[in-house]
Amino acid sequence: MLKGFNYPLTPKGKSTLNPPPPWHYSADFLSIEFWSDAAAVAAVLPAGLDSDRSANGHANALFYDWQFSGSNEEYLDPARYQYREFFILVDALLEGRPVAYCPYIFVDNDAAIGRGWSQGYPKRLGQVFQTRYYAATGKAGPALAPGAKFAGSLTSSGQRLAEGLVTLQEPVKDMSVLQQRPIVNLLHTPRLAAGKQDKPAVHELVENVPRDVKIAQPWIGEGSLTLPVCRGEEVSDLAPVRCGRGIRASLAYIVDDLKTLRDLR
Amino acid sequence: MLKGFNYPLTPKGKSTLNPPPPWHYSADFLSIEFWSDAAAVAAVLPAGLDSDRSANGHANALFYDWQFSGSNEEYLDPARYQYREFFILVDALLEGRPVAYCPYIFVDNDAAIGRGWSQGYPKRLGQVFQTRYYAATGKAGPALAPGAKFAGSLTSSGQRLAEGLVTLQEPVKDMSVLQQRPIVNLLHTPRLAAGKQDKPAVHELVENVPRDVKIAQPWIGEGSLTLPVCRGEEVSDLAPVRCGRGIRASLAYIVDDLKTLRDLR
Amino acid sequence: MLKGFNYPLTPKGKSTLNPPPPWHYSADFLSIEFWSDAAAVAAVLPAGLDSDRSANGHANALFYDWQFSGSNEEYLDPARYQYREFFILVDALLEGRPVAYCPYIFVDNDAAIGRGWSQGYPKRLGQVFQTRYYAATGKAGPALAPGAKFAGSLTSSGQRLAEGLVTLQEPVKDMSVLQQRPIVNLLHTPRLAAGKQDKPAVHELVENVPRDVKIAQPWIGEGSLTLPVCRGEEVSDLAPVRCGRGIRASLAYIVDDLKTLRDLR
Amino acid sequence: MLKGFNYPLTPKGKSTLNPPPPWHYSADFLSIEFWSDAAAVAAVLPAGLDSDRSANGHANALFYDWQFSGSNEEYLDPARYQYREFFILVDALLEGRPVAYCPYIFVDNDAAIGRGWSQGYPKRLGQVFQTRYYAATGKAGPALAPGAKFAGSLTSSGQRLAEGLVTLQEPVKDMSVLQQRPIVNLLHTPRLAAGKQDKPAVHELVENVPRDVKIAQPWIGEGSLTLPVCRGEEVSDLAPVRCGRGIRASLAYIVDDLKTLRDLR
Repeated sequence: MLKGFNYPLTPKGKSTLNPPPPWHYSADFLSIEFWSDAAAVAAVLPAGLDSDRSANGHANALFYDWQFSGSNEEYLDPARYQYREFFILVDALLEGRPVAYCPYIFVDNDAAIGRGWSQGYPKRLGQVFQTRYYAATGKAGPALAPGAKFAGSLTSSGQRLAEGLVTLQEPVKDMSVLQQRPIVNLLHTPRLAAGKQDKPAVHELVENVPRDVKIAQPWIGEGSLTLPVCRGEEVSDLAPVRCGRGIRASLAYIVDDLKTLRDLR
Repeated sequence: MLKGFNYPLTPKGKSTLNPPPPWHYSADFLSIEFWSDAAAVAAVLPAGLDSDRSANGHANALFYDWQFSGSNEEYLDPARYQYREFFILVDALLEGRPVAYCPYIFVDNDAAIGRGWSQGYPKRLGQVFQTRYYAATGKAGPALAPGAKFAGSLTSSGQRLAEGLVTLQEPVKDMSVLQQRPIVNLLHTPRLAAGKQDKPAVHELVENVPRDVKIAQPWIGEGSLTLPVCRGEEVSDLAPVRCGRGIRASLAYIVDDLKTLRDLR
Repeated sequence: MLKGFNYPLTPKGKSTLNPPPPWHYSADFLSIEFWSDAAAVAAVLPAGLDSDRSANGHANALFYDWQFSGSNEEYLDPARYQYREFFILVDALLEGRPVAYCPYIFVDNDAAIGRGWSQGYPKRLGQVFQTRYYAATGKAGPALAPGAKFAGSLTSSGQRLAEGLVTLQEPVKDMSVLQQRPIVNLLHTPRLAAGKQDKPAVHELVENVPRDVKIAQPWIGEGSLTLPVCRGEEVSDLAPVRCGRGIRASLAYIVDDLKTLRDLR
Repeated sequence: MLKGFNYPLTPKGKSTLNPPPPWHYSADFLSIEFWSDAAAVAAVLPAGLDSDRSANGHANALFYDWQFSGSNEEYLDPARYQYREFFILVDALLEGRPVAYCPYIFVDNDAAIGRGWSQGYPKRLGQVFQTRYYAATGKAGPALAPGAKFAGSLTSSGQRLAEGLVTLQEPVKDMSVLQQRPIVNLLHTPRLAAGKQDKPAVHELVENVPRDVKIAQPWIGEGSLTLPVCRGEEVSDLAPVRCGRGIRASLAYIVDDLKTLRDLR
């Protein structure tokens, strides 16, 4: 019997991209609120999701510095399981319920691509960086203090696709500002067989089910984001009309489930 | 309607990892014949494939320097569509028919991961290099001549997983030595939903259907291969007991189909 | 006694970035002729070099896919010694003699940085790609034929700094079109000691002395180049006013000398 | 007048690898004490440094996750100025004075190579990772607590050159355990000119002069380190005979000077 969650499946299950769930995550992140043209947001939604008119193009851009682990201290192999991520979440409605949908996401690690595609995150490879905070500060980085600045950037296939900046104002007091809408993704596995290339093997609306979410050191302030026009890319169609608040915090959670909402085939 | 073959699916279909088939490929490659312990080969085979006892552990290791294109001159964006690959093919039987199965494969590009997973190739990211031949030669590289040497190497997650060497003897005269067994893969898409993690969404034996295969400049000689023992990896379980011939050539073909042989669920 | 040419110097001389000269090189390259604003070219020249008014801002942009070797078959370690390069050469005069000067150059390999800095090439890291030609052709790449297209791109620190295209017209018949001006560089080693930071340890005009130059498969046609404006970069100050011919060829040569023309301190 | 500290020197000084000093640094680091064969340590020392017999092969291996800045918030371009580093410091004597010497060092960034070579650090490119600590903890990473484990790894040119582990025992109470010997390096710039390749342009013993050193969150415990034998590399000649304490902490300092101790030419 071959073992492994994602490819490859092998006799001992050591070579697999990912150990079986539960999957444990910790990260530092930047979150930048912005408003795109509402029609551009509507255009990225899959069947089954509707525009949230009251949201008026509202979205969030997120930069994450992640550490991943299965149940066997995988975080002690950081070359294999540490990674960086950028993604966009746009507001939408699922049968009238407010949700968020991820049209674009980039990571610098193949295990993260494997887990992502298993959750409906449409990951591509990218080079993602964000300014770090260190316990020992000086002029090489920001303190956690009013006016401190944290920047993020994304490059994929050699082009700079996103740049963001968060300027801190104060620690988050009202934790409700950190609440996110539930994330609903398009789980999609194509078929290469001739004659079936428009009949995907999997094509479902799915809801992410993170658990044991912890947030630490949250600060809030102002955000800014640019999504430059690039050749062969369309992320820039969501370019901000205006930006809103910015958040910088640490996060931990566990993933070991996914809920299918609807088969779209 | 969202467009794209692999993730992401977007309004214009420009951001997708891969354009729709047909997919066009050209490459220079090294092929190294070797024999593993027959039990180690048997252990990597999925249900539906049997050991080829007469093969006695026979396998091939391949290093490819690829260029990919869809139908719109994608080769003019080499940062996105050029890539390098290492893989292993082991001899097996499908209901008595000689085939080859790919237990391990590594590429340095996400579009190649996407296409690979659509064909049952269990790709992970790796850094792959092979010695190049140039029309203008000197001591910086081999000529296409007896005694010329071409080396290949694979690193993944920071560990050197394979090293190979081909020493040329003569141009291939009998083109039948270049014939490969049909490649039969395990097409696998896992399910993350709790309670279904051992019930994959897709779990099929599939046969690759390359067409319009062209080979140019083939040379044959001796091959050598090492698959070092590495932490958290099991490729080394297929380490060569002995090595056989080595080939260096150029190749082109087209992929636009995949044949499902058997649903294994 | 410690051994090595570039850092590190070690007991056996194996860990050094580069073996001692002679250094052997082979490559495929694209060369794109262009004209910048003449004042922008004048502005990048070091002391000792004068504007070549008759050149009127003339320059060349070059994409190289290199293989390097010392005297011990280093090309059999392609992960360490293969690399890709982009650079610009602008026309200038040295005491009235036509020469070319390299203001910008990018490679994807540290050994290449080491050799470059020893020759006055101001190398930074970049990701460089160019379309490849394979002996086995199809739609995945160009043939060597009229109308065939080869593209190149450069990314550094996450920003796309250059894109080029060569469209072939015919094989080069008159080899004199391949002749380059001698390359004169600024050899520069800074001093970090307080009070000496404006007194470099080395600051010389040097002339490169390649030998045994061979060119193969040269084709000529049209070139085009863009140098986009990027944050924190000034390569774009040399953006083409117009472009001229494009060349695609293979090259080999040897480097084992450098000629100091003038100490600029 | 061309501007820039390291290459390239340009009209505006924006493209240079590094802004002029002062250079500001912050990092998280792992430090692992070990003892090599004393003869192996003696063999890596340059002229002017003597073996410290009482040290008996004592050395430290260090993994750093750095953020760098000049005076203009360069930390807001993390794709360009954030980097990771591994290095070894061996005990030595300078005219009887206890110092440390750096025979091997690897970073993943070109600006860091440039600054390093200006300080006598013999940097090569490598891929370096260390386990991270996050304010929001779970099973994806260690807490700052007794028994917590932090791992580090180094890969260069595709080979795994070092692996380390620090297991925390307690916060550092006696800050004197964090004191390092002054670092004395070999500042070396080779000459490529024929006939002068054994007459470097610069060949000096230099002493690093960090200032405003701050340390935060220091924990002490046990360290372990392996330096595997690799092809074409000699770091493994310093492989530990035994290991000692391990430290995990954050650090910040400023560099704007370098002291030449002795010209070795």
